[in-house]
Amino acid sequence: MKELLYGVAYYDEYMPYERLETDIQMMLEAGINVVRIAESTWSTHEPQNGVFDFTSVNRVLDAMYKSGIHVIVGTPTYAVPTWMVKEHPDVLAVTKNGPGKYGARQIMDITNPAYLFYAERIIRKLMDNVKDHPAIIGYQIDNETKHYDTSGPSVQQKFIKYLKDKFKTPDALNKEFGLAYWSNDVHAWEDMPSVIGTINGSLGAEFSKFQRKLVDDFLAWQVHIVKEYRQEGQFITQNFDFEWRGYSFGVQPNVNHFTASEPFDITGVDIYHPTQEDLTGIEISFGGDVARSTKQQNYFVLETEAQAFSNWTPFPGQLRLQAFSHVASGANMVAYWHWHSIHNSFETYWKGLLSHDLQPNPVYHEAKTIGADFKRLSSKIMNLKKKNKTAILVSNESLTGLSWFKFNQKTELNYNDIVRLIYDELYKLNVEVDMIHPDTKELDQYSLIIVPCLYVAPDSLLERLNQFVEDGGHAIFTFKSGFTNEHIKVRTTPQPGIIEKACGVQYQMFVEPKNVKLAGNPYEVEEADNKVHTWMELLTPTTANILAKYDHPGWGEYAAITGNEYGKGYATYIGCIVSIEIMSSILAQALKRANIWGTEQEMSFPIIIKSGVNDQGNTIKFFFNYSFEEQKIEYPFKESTELLSDKSVHIGDSLTIKPWSFTVLEVN
Amino acid sequence: MKELLYGVAYYDEYMPYERLETDIQMMLEAGINVVRIAESTWSTHEPQNGVFDFTSVNRVLDAMYKSGIHVIVGTPTYAVPTWMVKEHPDVLAVTKNGPGKYGARQIMDITNPAYLFYAERIIRKLMDNVKDHPAIIGYQIDNETKHYDTSGPSVQQKFIKYLKDKFKTPDALNKEFGLAYWSNDVHAWEDMPSVIGTINGSLGAEFSKFQRKLVDDFLAWQVHIVKEYRQEGQFITQNFDFEWRGYSFGVQPNVNHFTASEPFDITGVDIYHPTQEDLTGIEISFGGDVARSTKQQNYFVLETEAQAFSNWTPFPGQLRLQAFSHVASGANMVAYWHWHSIHNSFETYWKGLLSHDLQPNPVYHEAKTIGADFKRLSSKIMNLKKKNKTAILVSNESLTGLSWFKFNQKTELNYNDIVRLIYDELYKLNVEVDMIHPDTKELDQYSLIIVPCLYVAPDSLLERLNQFVEDGGHAIFTFKSGFTNEHIKVRTTPQPGIIEKACGVQYQMFVEPKNVKLAGNPYEVEEADNKVHTWMELLTPTTANILAKYDHPGWGEYAAITGNEYGKGYATYIGCIVSIEIMSSILAQALKRANIWGTEQEMSFPIIIKSGVNDQGNTIKFFFNYSFEEQKIEYPFKESTELLSDKSVHIGDSLTIKPWSFTVLEVN
Amino acid sequence: MKELLYGVAYYDEYMPYERLETDIQMMLEAGINVVRIAESTWSTHEPQNGVFDFTSVNRVLDAMYKSGIHVIVGTPTYAVPTWMVKEHPDVLAVTKNGPGKYGARQIMDITNPAYLFYAERIIRKLMDNVKDHPAIIGYQIDNETKHYDTSGPSVQQKFIKYLKDKFKTPDALNKEFGLAYWSNDVHAWEDMPSVIGTINGSLGAEFSKFQRKLVDDFLAWQVHIVKEYRQEGQFITQNFDFEWRGYSFGVQPNVNHFTASEPFDITGVDIYHPTQEDLTGIEISFGGDVARSTKQQNYFVLETEAQAFSNWTPFPGQLRLQAFSHVASGANMVAYWHWHSIHNSFETYWKGLLSHDLQPNPVYHEAKTIGADFKRLSSKIMNLKKKNKTAILVSNESLTGLSWFKFNQKTELNYNDIVRLIYDELYKLNVEVDMIHPDTKELDQYSLIIVPCLYVAPDSLLERLNQFVEDGGHAIFTFKSGFTNEHIKVRTTPQPGIIEKACGVQYQMFVEPKNVKLAGNPYEVEEADNKVHTWMELLTPTTANILAKYDHPGWGEYAAITGNEYGKGYATYIGCIVSIEIMSSILAQALKRANIWGTEQEMSFPIIIKSGVNDQGNTIKFFFNYSFEEQKIEYPFKESTELLSDKSVHIGDSLTIKPWSFTVLEVN
Repeated sequence: MKELLYGVAYYDEYMPYERLETDIQMMLEAGINVVRIAESTWSTHEPQNGVFDFTSVNRVLDAMYKSGIHVIVGTPTYAVPTWMVKEHPDVLAVTKNGPGKYGARQIMDITNPAYLFYAERIIRKLMDNVKDHPAIIGYQIDNETKHYDTSGPSVQQKFIKYLKDKFKTPDALNKEFGLAYWSNDVHAWEDMPSVIGTINGSLGAEFSKFQRKLVDDFLAWQVHIVKEYRQEGQFITQNFDFEWRGYSFGVQPNVNHFTASEPFDITGVDIYHPTQEDLTGIEISFGGDVARSTKQQNYFVLETEAQAFSNWTPFPGQLRLQAFSHVASGANMVAYWHWHSIHNSFETYWKGLLSHDLQPNPVYHEAKTIGADFKRLSSKIMNLKKKNKTAILVSNESLTGLSWFKFNQKTELNYNDIVRLIYDELYKLNVEVDMIHPDTKELDQYSLIIVPCLYVAPDSLLERLNQFVEDGGHAIFTFKSGFTNEHIKVRTTPQPGIIEKACGVQYQMFVEPKNVKLAGNPYEVEEADNKVHTWMELLTPTTANILAKYDHPGWGEYAAITGNEYGKGYATYIGCIVSIEIMSSILAQALKRANIWGTEQEMSFPIIIKSGVNDQGNTIKFFFNYSFEEQKIEYPFKESTELLSDKSVHIGDSLTIKPWSFTVLEVN
Repeated sequence: MKELLYGVAYYDEYMPYERLETDIQMMLEAGINVVRIAESTWSTHEPQNGVFDFTSVNRVLDAMYKSGIHVIVGTPTYAVPTWMVKEHPDVLAVTKNGPGKYGARQIMDITNPAYLFYAERIIRKLMDNVKDHPAIIGYQIDNETKHYDTSGPSVQQKFIKYLKDKFKTPDALNKEFGLAYWSNDVHAWEDMPSVIGTINGSLGAEFSKFQRKLVDDFLAWQVHIVKEYRQEGQFITQNFDFEWRGYSFGVQPNVNHFTASEPFDITGVDIYHPTQEDLTGIEISFGGDVARSTKQQNYFVLETEAQAFSNWTPFPGQLRLQAFSHVASGANMVAYWHWHSIHNSFETYWKGLLSHDLQPNPVYHEAKTIGADFKRLSSKIMNLKKKNKTAILVSNESLTGLSWFKFNQKTELNYNDIVRLIYDELYKLNVEVDMIHPDTKELDQYSLIIVPCLYVAPDSLLERLNQFVEDGGHAIFTFKSGFTNEHIKVRTTPQPGIIEKACGVQYQMFVEPKNVKLAGNPYEVEEADNKVHTWMELLTPTTANILAKYDHPGWGEYAAITGNEYGKGYATYIGCIVSIEIMSSILAQALKRANIWGTEQEMSFPIIIKSGVNDQGNTIKFFFNYSFEEQKIEYPFKESTELLSDKSVHIGDSLTIKPWSFTVLEVN
Repeated sequence: MKELLYGVAYYDEYMPYERLETDIQMMLEAGINVVRIAESTWSTHEPQNGVFDFTSVNRVLDAMYKSGIHVIVGTPTYAVPTWMVKEHPDVLAVTKNGPGKYGARQIMDITNPAYLFYAERIIRKLMDNVKDHPAIIGYQIDNETKHYDTSGPSVQQKFIKYLKDKFKTPDALNKEFGLAYWSNDVHAWEDMPSVIGTINGSLGAEFSKFQRKLVDDFLAWQVHIVKEYRQEGQFITQNFDFEWRGYSFGVQPNVNHFTASEPFDITGVDIYHPTQEDLTGIEISFGGDVARSTKQQNYFVLETEAQAFSNWTPFPGQLRLQAFSHVASGANMVAYWHWHSIHNSFETYWKGLLSHDLQPNPVYHEAKTIGADFKRLSSKIMNLKKKNKTAILVSNESLTGLSWFKFNQKTELNYNDIVRLIYDELYKLNVEVDMIHPDTKELDQYSLIIVPCLYVAPDSLLERLNQFVEDGGHAIFTFKSGFTNEHIKVRTTPQPGIIEKACGVQYQMFVEPKNVKLAGNPYEVEEADNKVHTWMELLTPTTANILAKYDHPGWGEYAAITGNEYGKGYATYIGCIVSIEIMSSILAQALKRANIWGTEQEMSFPIIIKSGVNDQGNTIKFFFNYSFEEQKIEYPFKESTELLSDKSVHIGDSLTIKPWSFTVLEVN
C-alpha cells in the first residue's frame, strides 16, 4: 500500500435513485479513496440462471476510476439468488435445526456441488468482465465466510471419509473418542450416525473442526480461481469476523483465522463494537491484534460502523478516535459498512456514513476530517510495525472443547470470556500483544506468553510451552489448560498434566466456588473485588510457590495461584476465575517479573497508548482518551513531533487530550 | 336495540348433567336477557362427515324463547372436528413452525377449500335449521377470527398472485421492496420463494397485510352466506379481539378491525382485563373505543370475564363497576364468557359466572344487581352517543412495520406500548377519545389528533395530516412517524419527511438514550420521572419552538420535543420515549392549547368520568371509583338526577363514591 | 442381605488402559464389596447385529469373584447401538418434538418391536453367558427406565385400543373427558387424532398415565425374561430415579414407582443431591422414604454421587455423612456412580470416586473410612426397620393433573414443590415419614396422613380418607385436594367435594393472593414470613373451626386454614400456599394434636435424627450434623452404645457432633 485506505462499502444496486456522481463527489470531499463493491449482489449480476449483467459493476468501476477512487471487487457468493434455490433447494444448508429456508444470506451448503458450480461460474464471469479494469486494487473472496453449520447427509458422508482417513479403523476412532460410552461405538463405517445428535464431545468437536476445514477449503478454492485472473499488484483478501455478541467479541468459533487466512495476500476483518458511553477501543484493538497476527503484517478493516444502530451512533469525536485507533493497531485500511443507509429490507437500521436522506450529516462531516488527516499523515502512520514482547495463545480447539464442557452447569461464561478477561486487562495496562496459536513456531520471540484455558492441546504443544519456560520465558497458564489431548480425551495423569513440569503444581479436584476469596487478599484489591467465581481447582504445589490460597472453611488448604521457577523461566498458574481487579494485578506482577513493565504501563485506561514503527523507521506514539473527561498527561517519551499540529513535544511537557480524542506523535 | 343486553355464552353441549331449566331460572333471576350459543361446537352438530344434529341448538332456542331470553347463534367454524382433520389433514394451517397439530381451536387454513366446503355446508345446514326461530336476535360469524399465520404453499401461491396484481412486474416489486438486498430479488414470478424465511421487512409486512386481508375475505364470505337466511331485524356481528398479553392489551396485529368490521351490522368484541388490585378500567375503555370507532356506533361486548382466572376473580363491587364501565363507553351488550365453568379440557380455570358447582355464588349475586339495574335504566343509559374532540390514529401497517424494525435491539416495547402510553394517560385525565385509522375521512371533526409511531404511511395520509393542522387542527406526532412509505421504504428526505411541514422539525440521526433526561425538567415532574428511554431522535427545528432539549454531554444541542404553529393549527412533535409523567404533561399542555381542557380534566384517575348522550338527548355522566379508597367529589356539572338512587344532585354537592363503585347521573 | 453393600458402578469398557487388577486392589482397600456392570454397554457386547462378545463381562466377573466382590449385572438395554438405529431408524422414539436423533441413551421407543426383538436377544445371550457365575448377587433391569415421551403413530394406535378397552364407546370417552370442548369429540374410534397436540387435560393426562403403564409393562417383561435364568438367592432390581431439577427433587412424573416396582425383589434408586454448602440430607431422606415405601422394605441406593460436578464435590466429612444418611433411611446398599471418571464423551465432569488420574484422592480416602465402618457395623445398622406414624400421600395422577392445570398462569411451582414444602419441614422437625399412594391399603397404621394437592382422585380414595379421619386418624389436606375425579373432571359439588365431610369446609371461589397475609399472624412467625402466595381458596367453614383468616380488604371474611373434628379424628385444611415457616407451625400443631410429637422434635435441623430397629431388635439412633458448626446436644434417649467409638452414652450426656459429621448409637 502506498497510502492509508479510507473506504466504504458501496452498493449502486441498492440506491433509491441515480446517485453515482453525487456520491463520488461526496466521497471525494470526505477523503474516501477506496470502495468495496459486489460481494452481496449476485442476483443483480445474474438475474436469471446463466444471464449475466455487470452493468452496475462496470459503471461504478468507470466512475470511480475517473475520480481516482480505488475499488475492491468482491465475489458475490455469500448471498444466493432466488432462482438458484427454487431450482435446487438442496443448495441450502441442512443443519441441526433441519432444512434451511430462503431469505437470509449465508444459508447455503458451501460443499453443495450445484452451489459450487454456480459460484465458480459467476466468479469467472465477473473476473472476465473486470480483470483489466485499472480501478481495481484487489479482490475480496466471498464475505464473512463461515460453515453455517452445514451438516446434512452429504456433509456427514464427507465427515466419515475424513474420519476414515484420520483413524483408519473404527476401533481406533472408538478408542480415541471413547465412543463405547452409552453404546455409541461404531464397528463398521457404514453404521456411523449423523453427528447432529451426538452427545460425544470428542466426536462433536471433531466435526466442528472438520466444518472449519470446509471453510478453509472453500476460501482456498475461490482464491485459486481468482488468482487465474488477477493482475500484478492486486491483492486478494477476505473479510473475517469474530465471535458475535451483538458486536465483535472474541475468537471466531466457526473459522480458524490462522489457517483460513493462509491463501490470502492480506487479512481483512470487520470490527463492530459498542460506542457512545460504551466505547473503550478494546474490540478495535482485539480484532486488530488478531488480524495483524494471522500473517504478522498490516491488515485491513474492511468493515466497521459509521452510524449503525441507535446505540452505536458515535458521539462527536468518536468516529475520529475509532479510525485512528484502527491505524494505531496496524490497520492500513479503515472502511465503513457502508456508504449509505438502506431504505428497505433487513439492515435498514444498520446505518451508513450517510443517513437515509443521503445528505451530509454530523458523522459525515467528522469523516471529512479523518479523510483529510489520513491523506496528510499516510506516510507517517501507515504500515506501522510492532514488536510485541507479550503474546496470548488462543485455540479454536479449546474454544470448541469448552463449549462442550462448560465451566459449570449454570454459567454463561465461555472460552472467549476468559480470553477477554486477560486481553482487556492488558489493554487497560497499555500492553500491546500478539495473538498466537497452537502452531505458532517461534515462541522465543516473546518474553511473556499468556495461555488462557488451553483445554485442548496435543502433548507436543504443551511440551513446547514447557521448553519456552525452561529456556527463560515467562508464562501464565490459567485453569483448565492442558486438561485434555487434541481429541478432548482427558489426560490420565494428575492435572494439569504435561505443564505440571513448568508450573510445579498438581490437582485432582475442582469445585464451584461459593463465597470464596483469596486468603489474606494478596493482590490488595478492594474487599468486594477479592473474589473467585464459577470455577476453582484445588491446587497442591509440587515445586511452585503459593501466590494465593483460597479463603474457605472446606478448601482453605489448597492453593489458588502459584508461581514456579523452571529452568531459566517462570510460570504462573491461575487455578480459578478471579475478578478483573485481581487479574490486572496478576498480569502486572508477571510483566514486572518478566521485565517488560515499561513507561506505557505507568498510564492506564481511559488513556490508551499504542506504538509502532513506520516505514521511515521512526516510532509513532498514539495517546487516546476514551472518556468524556479531558486528560492531562506529562509526556513521558523522547522529543517528538505531534503530527496533527506539527508541534514539538519534549519529555515532561504537559499534554492535554480532549474527551474522545487523541494525539499522535512521531518520536524524533 | 330496545334494551341493554346482559348476556352469557351458554354451552348446553358442555353441561355435566341436565341443567337447562335450572340454568334459565337462574339466568332470569340475574336479569340475563341474551345468550350466545353454538360458535364452538361444530362436532356436536356434525358428529360425522355429513351427519347433522342440531338438538342442542333447538332445545336451547325453544327453552330460551319460552323464557323470553334472546339468542345469538354463532357459525361453528372456528374449531374443526376430528373427522375432518383425519380425512383432510391439510385443513390445518401450515405456518413458519411447520404443519399444524390437531387439538386447539383456530388451527385451520382459512383458505383451504376442504375447510371452506365443510364450513359452508355446516353454516347452511345450521341456518336452514334455525332461521325461522323467534328467539334469535342475531348471528355471530365464527369467533375471534384471525389468520392463524397460515402460510403454506397454497397461501404462498395466492400471495404471488396478489403481488402480481399489485406490482405487475417483478422489477416493480424488486424496486419498491428493495429485494436486491442480499440477492433476494425476483426476476421471474416463478422464482418467488416462500416468505416464511424472508428477511425483507417490506415483503414480510406485505405478507402480513395479505394475511389480514384473508381474514376480511373469510368473514365477508361467511356474512354473505348468513345474509341469505337471516330475517329482518336480526343483526350479524363478529367477536373481535385485541393484542393479547394475557389480557386485551392493544391494537390487534392480525386483523384490521376497521376493514374487517365493514360487512357486519354491529361490531362485537371481547375484552379481558386484569382485575382485583390491577383493575383500572383502561382495557374496558380502550377496547370499547376501538369497537365504537370501527363503525362510529354502539357496540357489543360479546365476551368479558366473570370470575375467570384466580387473579381475575373480582373483588366485591368490581363486577358492577366493570359492567357499567362498558356501558359508559357505549356498549349495548355486556356478556360474560361464560355462564358455567367447564369441568374438563382446557379452559377449566377460565371460570364463568357460575363456579364448577353450578350454584349461586357471590359473583353471581352481584350479577343479579347488575341485571336489575340494566333493566331499570336501559332507556337512560343505552345507545349512548359521544362526540369526542380527541382522536388517536392507529395503524396496523405501522404496528407490523415496527415489529420488523423494533425501537432498539433489546427492547420488548412495541407499537402498542406507545399507543397505550398515550391512551392510558388520556384515560387517567378523563379525556374520551375516538380511535381513527389511515383511511378515516373526516379528520376535521376533531380538535386534537394524536399520532403515535405512524411509522408506515403513504404520502397522502401524511399530507392530509398536514392539511388538518393547516386548517386549524392540533396534532401530536411521536418519534418514528412518517419514517417510511406504505411499503416500509424509508423516505429519502430528511426525517420526519412530509410531516416536517406541520411539525417544523428535522432529524438525520437517532440514538439510544442512556442516562438521558430533559434539560431543565421542563414538565416539572419528579426528578426520577424526568427520563427518556429506548429511543431518541436528535431533532433540529426548522420553524418549530423547542419545548424540551436533551440533557446529555453528547447530544445536548438537540431538541427532544418541539411545537410548531402551522397554518391555523399547531403540531407537537415528541422525538423520544418519555416517562408516563412527562407524557401526561405533554398531553395536558396540548389539550389546553387545543382548548379542549374541561371540567372532566380537573379530576383524574382513580376517579374516571365518562359521558354520553342518550336517546332522549340527555347527557349521562358516570363517575367511577377505581380504587379501594372511598372518593369524595364536589359535583361539577349541572343539576342532575342520580339514576341509581333517583335523587337530585346540584352543582357543588358533595358526592361520595364507594370503593370499586360508581355513580351515574342524567343531566337535566 | 448379609452385609451392608458398599459399591460402585464399574465400566471395564470405558477404561483408558488395563486397570482391572489395580482397580480391584483399590476397591478392596476402600471396602467396596459390590460392583454394578453392563447396563450401558450394549454395543460392546453386541458390536454388530448378532455378533456377541461378553469378554469384558466375563473377565470382570472372574476377577471380582476372585477378590470376593459381588457383582450386579444390568441388562444393557437403555442405550442402543449405532448398527441398530442405522438398520431400523424407527427404534427411536417419535415425540412431540418429532423424530429422534441418535446420540444419547434413552431415546428409543420402548414399544417398538425391532427394539424389543434385539433387547430380548441381548438379554438372553447375556443371561446365558453369566447365569452360573458365582460372583453375581443380582440383576438390574435396564436403567432409569422411563417412557421417553414415546408418542409416535404406533403408540397412538395402542392408546386408542387402551381407550376402547376402558371406555368401550367413543361417547363414553367424550363425556368423561369433556371432548366436546372446542369440537374435540370423537364419534368413531378411527377419527381419534394423535394426542400430541391435544389441549384436553383429561385426554393428555390419560395418555401420560398410559405412557407410565408402558414403563410398567416394559420392566415386567424384562423381569419375566431374567427370571427364567436367575439362580436362587439372586435378586432382580431396578434403578428408579426422581423428578430431576439438576438433582433428585421429587416424585417422578414419568414412572409410577409404586406399580413399576411390583415385579422386582428389591427397589433400587439413584439419589443425586446438592452438596457443599447446599447439603441438607433432604433428598437422601426423601428418595429413601419413597424407595423404602414402594415395597415397605429396605432398598438399594444404586447410584449416588462421589465427586460428580464441581458444585457437588463433597467437603471433607460429607461423603461419610451422606453414606450413613442413606443407611439411616433404610438403605442396604450405597453405591457410587461411578468408580472412575470418564475421559471422553458426555459425562466427563460427572466424576467418580476416582478422578481422571485414577489415583487415590481425598474423596477416595474418605470412602475407605466408610467401607471400614460399614464392614464393622453391618450387623448393627443394616436392615433397619421403621414404624412411622406419619405418612405423606403422593399421587402421580395429581402431579400430572397439576402440570396441565397449574396453580396460576405465571408460577413455576408445581406439585412436587408442595410435596417438598411439606416433606422438607417435616424433615427439619425430625419427623420420619412413609410415602403412601392412592392404592395404599392400611391407612390406619398411621396417626397422621398429610395429603398435599390431591387434585386428581377417585371418589373411593377420598371416602377412605374420610373414613380414616372418622376412625380417629389425623389428616392434613392442602388446597386443590379432591378437586377432580380420576379423569380430571372437576366435581360439580361445592369444593373440596367429598372431603368436605372430614374437613367441614367449603369454597366456591379461589383467587391469586397479592400482599395477603394471615390475619393476626396466628402462627406467630416473623412478620416477613407471614405470607400467602400463588394460590388461595376462599374458605367458608361448615363445621370446621377457623385456624386462620386472610388479612386482605377484599377477602377478609374468608378462612385460610381450618381444623375440623370429625368422628374420632381431626382434619386440617390448608387453603393456600403459605411460607415454610407457617407450614412448619401447622405441621408442629398437627403433630402435637395427633400425639406424635416426641423427643426427636425437640431438636431440629441442622441436627437430624433418624431411627430404626435392627435385626437384633435394638433401636439404632443416628444424629447428623448438617452444618459447618459443631453441634452440642444433651443426649435425650435411654442408655446407648455409640457405635463408632464403642463408648456408652447415658441420658443427659453431652454429645458433640463435628461439622458435617454424625454419631450413631444402639439403644441398650
